[in-house]
Amino acid sequence: MKFNKESLLSNIKVGDRRALARALTHVENDSSTGKFLVNELFSKMGDAQIIGITGAPGSGKSSLVDRLIGEYRSKDLSVAVLALDPSSPFSGGAILGDRIRMLQYTQDPDVFVRSMASRGKLGGLSVATFSSILLLDASGFDRIIIETVGAGQSEVEIAKNCDTTMVVTVSGMGDDIQLIKAGIMEIADIFIVNKSDKSGAEEFGSQMRHMIDPAEWTIPVCLTSATENTGISELITKIDDHWLYLKSSKKLSQSRKNRIRYELGQRVTQSLTKQLNNIEMEDIIDKLLESKISIENAIALLIHDLTK
Amino acid sequence: MKFNKESLLSNIKVGDRRALARALTHVENDSSTGKFLVNELFSKMGDAQIIGITGAPGSGKSSLVDRLIGEYRSKDLSVAVLALDPSSPFSGGAILGDRIRMLQYTQDPDVFVRSMASRGKLGGLSVATFSSILLLDASGFDRIIIETVGAGQSEVEIAKNCDTTMVVTVSGMGDDIQLIKAGIMEIADIFIVNKSDKSGAEEFGSQMRHMIDPAEWTIPVCLTSATENTGISELITKIDDHWLYLKSSKKLSQSRKNRIRYELGQRVTQSLTKQLNNIEMEDIIDKLLESKISIENAIALLIHDLTK
Repeated sequence: MKFNKESLLSNIKVGDRRALARALTHVENDSSTGKFLVNELFSKMGDAQIIGITGAPGSGKSSLVDRLIGEYRSKDLSVAVLALDPSSPFSGGAILGDRIRMLQYTQDPDVFVRSMASRGKLGGLSVATFSSILLLDASGFDRIIIETVGAGQSEVEIAKNCDTTMVVTVSGMGDDIQLIKAGIMEIADIFIVNKSDKSGAEEFGSQMRHMIDPAEWTIPVCLTSATENTGISELITKIDDHWLYLKSSKKLSQSRKNRIRYELGQRVTQSLTKQLNNIEMEDIIDKLLESKISIENAIALLIHDLTK
Repeated sequence: MKFNKESLLSNIKVGDRRALARALTHVENDSSTGKFLVNELFSKMGDAQIIGITGAPGSGKSSLVDRLIGEYRSKDLSVAVLALDPSSPFSGGAILGDRIRMLQYTQDPDVFVRSMASRGKLGGLSVATFSSILLLDASGFDRIIIETVGAGQSEVEIAKNCDTTMVVTVSGMGDDIQLIKAGIMEIADIFIVNKSDKSGAEEFGSQMRHMIDPAEWTIPVCLTSATENTGISELITKIDDHWLYLKSSKKLSQSRKNRIRYELGQRVTQSLTKQLNNIEMEDIIDKLLESKISIENAIALLIHDLTK
């Protein structure tokens, strides 16, 4: 079937997976159809819980996501997974590993997996994260899992776009526990110690539990083993608990407004950056090099040019 | 010795290493002293060749940098290394590995190594890259090597800030050669196949050579083995060749102006993002959610607010 933008929209809304896949490509390419869809769906945030999962390469995120899919499916909940891969052409293959494992679900219409990589395109992971989530949400999934490698900007991207953010780590990576704490407190709603079958995992978990500050929502520390399939249902319980917490405390609408705020901020910056590239800077640069103006002056001049 | 900002400046200029180290911390912290130094040194771009090196974890970048230091020192050239580490608190330790190896040079005043990590600070690798290079340059080093992991934004950062950018890879990582080519053509001045003692390296190298488009400067493909210390002096020759090319073609002054242009762009964006955070968006978000305005309208309204 060939879709036009109207039929794409209506087919997404009834959960057509091919329409969804097509629409995601439009959004990734920032085509006019993509823009149309995002505008149409913007105010239609659905009931899906957006769950983010981030962690170092080797922490077993992808296997854990597979286990979560299995557990959700056993409860008859539909799941979409969006894997954001900040890998580059030089990183030696996709950091998030082989999505082929997930092929076990290709026959299941209630599981949808999409990878978005920035391979070969320098300068920016998925600016399309927000919009892709909109489409998945409009397609009626019960749970949307966003997976990314914890490196640089990508984990901020996750935290800003998800209702529930999970940070996965394993014990014995030799990290400074104070730094881990700082990072977790900044973005995690749930902290996962994966590979809990390894020695030291229990101890690491309880160390972390002791360090986490009590709060209205106290970040739980979950021990899981994706390979041995343990701790998964306990983890799901915590994810559900966080969802109930967000709903009951009215933090959910706040979280979604924050998501929009972040997205608008990104788009404004993008738009201004584009404008900036068209500004003639030669004169300002020359003055800087001749020490006639300071850097602060130069920035003020550029902002003035940008906004006149 | 206790430095004030004036003495820091004068001591950097005569190559005092402790003053340099202190000044770099000021720049990293974006302190008023840091700002003063950057303004003072802005127009004093020196004669150092700024050499960038990026590549996947495991490609042997750091060992290669060690070899380059050794080779430059044997020619009695002074070298500064700035290692930009985009690792996060969850990435299991510094991606760029242990700088302790470099301790062999601690007694050598003509080698200076500095790591800048974003560990524990989410949302942004070294905004201080440009300024740090300024300081190293002002300190009179002959060569400045900027090393980073090839992932996401960090390799753009490198390419924008360096005179000569080198991309390191190893054969057998299973990457799509067309994607590698696309990425290389975008940022590399020199392409390195490291671990050339491994089987397949020669073949991979000549495949790449055949794919690279001839140009005014045709990207050379260098085979090196950091562990066996082979190909290093040939690599240095290519780095020198590129430097001569930049100078003779007047591309050097252009490259440096581009560096300034990029830096000013970053700073303008940063400044506007800060302003954006202070803007009241509630009303615009509500209108969006009520489908009263489009996203494009919302962005235009925000830009208007930002610039009034």
